[in-house]
Amino acid sequence: MPTINENFLKLEKNYLFINIAKKVNAFLKENPDAKLIRMGIGDVTLPIAPVCVEAMKKGAEEMGVKETFKGYEDSGTGYDFLKQAIADYYQRYGVTLSLDEIRVNDGAKSDCGNIVDIFGDDNIVMVTDPAYPVYVDSNKMNGRTIIYADSNEENGFAAMPDFSVHADLIYLCSPNNPTGSVYTKEQLKVWVDYAKQNQAIIIYDAAYEAFITQPDIPHSIFEVEGAKTCAIEMCSLSKTAGFTGMRCGYTVIPNELTVTASDGTTVSISQLWGRRQGSKFNGVSYPVQCAAAAVFTEEGRKQIQKNIAYYQENAAIISRTMDELGIKYTGGINSPYIWFQCPNQMSSWEFFDEMLHKIAVVGTPGEGFGKNGDGWFRLTAFGDRDLTIEAMERFKNMLKK
Amino acid sequence: MPTINENFLKLEKNYLFINIAKKVNAFLKENPDAKLIRMGIGDVTLPIAPVCVEAMKKGAEEMGVKETFKGYEDSGTGYDFLKQAIADYYQRYGVTLSLDEIRVNDGAKSDCGNIVDIFGDDNIVMVTDPAYPVYVDSNKMNGRTIIYADSNEENGFAAMPDFSVHADLIYLCSPNNPTGSVYTKEQLKVWVDYAKQNQAIIIYDAAYEAFITQPDIPHSIFEVEGAKTCAIEMCSLSKTAGFTGMRCGYTVIPNELTVTASDGTTVSISQLWGRRQGSKFNGVSYPVQCAAAAVFTEEGRKQIQKNIAYYQENAAIISRTMDELGIKYTGGINSPYIWFQCPNQMSSWEFFDEMLHKIAVVGTPGEGFGKNGDGWFRLTAFGDRDLTIEAMERFKNMLKK
Repeated sequence: MPTINENFLKLEKNYLFINIAKKVNAFLKENPDAKLIRMGIGDVTLPIAPVCVEAMKKGAEEMGVKETFKGYEDSGTGYDFLKQAIADYYQRYGVTLSLDEIRVNDGAKSDCGNIVDIFGDDNIVMVTDPAYPVYVDSNKMNGRTIIYADSNEENGFAAMPDFSVHADLIYLCSPNNPTGSVYTKEQLKVWVDYAKQNQAIIIYDAAYEAFITQPDIPHSIFEVEGAKTCAIEMCSLSKTAGFTGMRCGYTVIPNELTVTASDGTTVSISQLWGRRQGSKFNGVSYPVQCAAAAVFTEEGRKQIQKNIAYYQENAAIISRTMDELGIKYTGGINSPYIWFQCPNQMSSWEFFDEMLHKIAVVGTPGEGFGKNGDGWFRLTAFGDRDLTIEAMERFKNMLKK
Repeated sequence: MPTINENFLKLEKNYLFINIAKKVNAFLKENPDAKLIRMGIGDVTLPIAPVCVEAMKKGAEEMGVKETFKGYEDSGTGYDFLKQAIADYYQRYGVTLSLDEIRVNDGAKSDCGNIVDIFGDDNIVMVTDPAYPVYVDSNKMNGRTIIYADSNEENGFAAMPDFSVHADLIYLCSPNNPTGSVYTKEQLKVWVDYAKQNQAIIIYDAAYEAFITQPDIPHSIFEVEGAKTCAIEMCSLSKTAGFTGMRCGYTVIPNELTVTASDGTTVSISQLWGRRQGSKFNGVSYPVQCAAAAVFTEEGRKQIQKNIAYYQENAAIISRTMDELGIKYTGGINSPYIWFQCPNQMSSWEFFDEMLHKIAVVGTPGEGFGKNGDGWFRLTAFGDRDLTIEAMERFKNMLKK
């Protein structure tokens, strides 16, 4: 009989958002008339931009004509037209990438989860706490030792490295999911210095970079000098352009990023990952890549910016509510997330239940993202404007009682 | 410094088809005017069916309207409309599946490569030789012991189990890639019996089932009684409906498929895989799923059948050429592949070079699929009709000289 990967038995039985969905479904079964407002899972609600729809339709039509039909992609790493659009986007922030440093994928989650396949199981993995659960789960699945860098009220939920502690792989996310905090260039430089001292690799999640409004906050870790020899960056169009149901993201692996194997040979991380993907991935749907490329056109950027501005205004509405109520929070600017302290010293799951049952608003309990998340709570600004306003009214009323 | 997964260093440096592409590119550089005919990689050439184009365009339009926009899929395992279509398709062959036994993916390669994540590294993996390289590579990446069941001229390149040898995981593919051989129901029953005796799990690759023409050849391993307690099946629309550039497939994991963990608990394979996918996958693009569902409509089936018939006629043209020349081969019926013995006792890479340089026809050397492939060669019937005829003319001329 096959043995199983028993590391799976040490995981939480379900992915966080599946647990939340179960609680919500149970509530709706008991309260079928409840006017539920979902501000939990970080899913967008506005449709994709018209340029993306048109580009996808055109791509679909090309697939239906022999002369323009596209089969397997030669490289499986994305068409040049899309990689060039991404490279041009990075150039806006002063980051020069060659096309072979960019790998188009079906969303950041896949690469973020799978990237660990190319590393040894004996690595020490550092994750900021709280964090997106995929960082922890994907490493637990291989039995790796995970250590945590604390993000908390004191450091504005932007953990900084402890130079006396060693790590081999480091996960950073800015703007942060779940806390909405951002790293300044100076702070990121400290992380890069820490990575270099430890000869570690930073896996940098930039999925929320499009929400950055302050000009001095870096959109990419590669804006920091020296990062190309110690970092991988992952980004996604899910939040940038409402692609959660379209599925397209990209990973940047600089060509100069190498490690030394046990036999002393220098190994390119890009080649190692390419070998992994060559056997386990076959590229992204061509019409999806067409839609993705449209995001980066001038008209596309205008259209997605309108949606981002809409979400930013939602975030401002939530932030103002917190300000009014005197509740501590991070995020809200540079981020679609508002991360606030649960009132009355409630635990985050207690507050989840309270909000669900008293005002039928679904949020995400901070504890789901790590121990430092207990007592904290995440709301997303990705909802409908009217529902966001309505939810905040209910929220204020609940806390006044 | 992070250690790498050193199992990668034991792999061939490149995935087979990347090596072939390099040889072809070098040839084209030297012979820019060569009229190359590609019969190597198993990629299709006919466009996707009109119903699929229309369904995808409609899906894209829905994504552009707030009321019909789709974000993250709740389950990440595929929309019910597509899973129902797949279940109905299985019902044609007498196989009853519940929707939660079907998982839609971005192509069979991903699941086929990733499924091993849920199993222990100490399992003994049996692969028929020759075989699709992903079976071997994805297990070598985890350092598993691989044993081979020989497919060769004697058994018509349809390996049967040796009951004196133990395996925990078994890869089977019928119609076979690369040999085009098929298992009868009786032969599959022997494999199911072998799996049961070993309490093993069969990973069954049915990617080419749509090419089966003989009524007594099973399209699914679940047509064999008892297979639901010992098999996982993977299928794809890549070859069925020309989806190599669209990216959609599906995996069937029966709910009754379980193993026993080291602590004695019964573990559902479906749940284990669900936990893996929950952390590392976010579902398939909605418009792609719309296009996939269209494949299974009455009109869709008519349209794809036309394309399959076209490829089947190509296969017949190649088969007739082999017959004429007295070359031994398998496949050609029930399969888009023709697997033939290299003339003049050449090795398969020698014959690859000979064909490339003498007649500018690209095939796949059998050795790339395993040791039993040496001296054998794969041609695909997925090409253009005129080019297939032209390639066979060149082939005959080459061998007459």
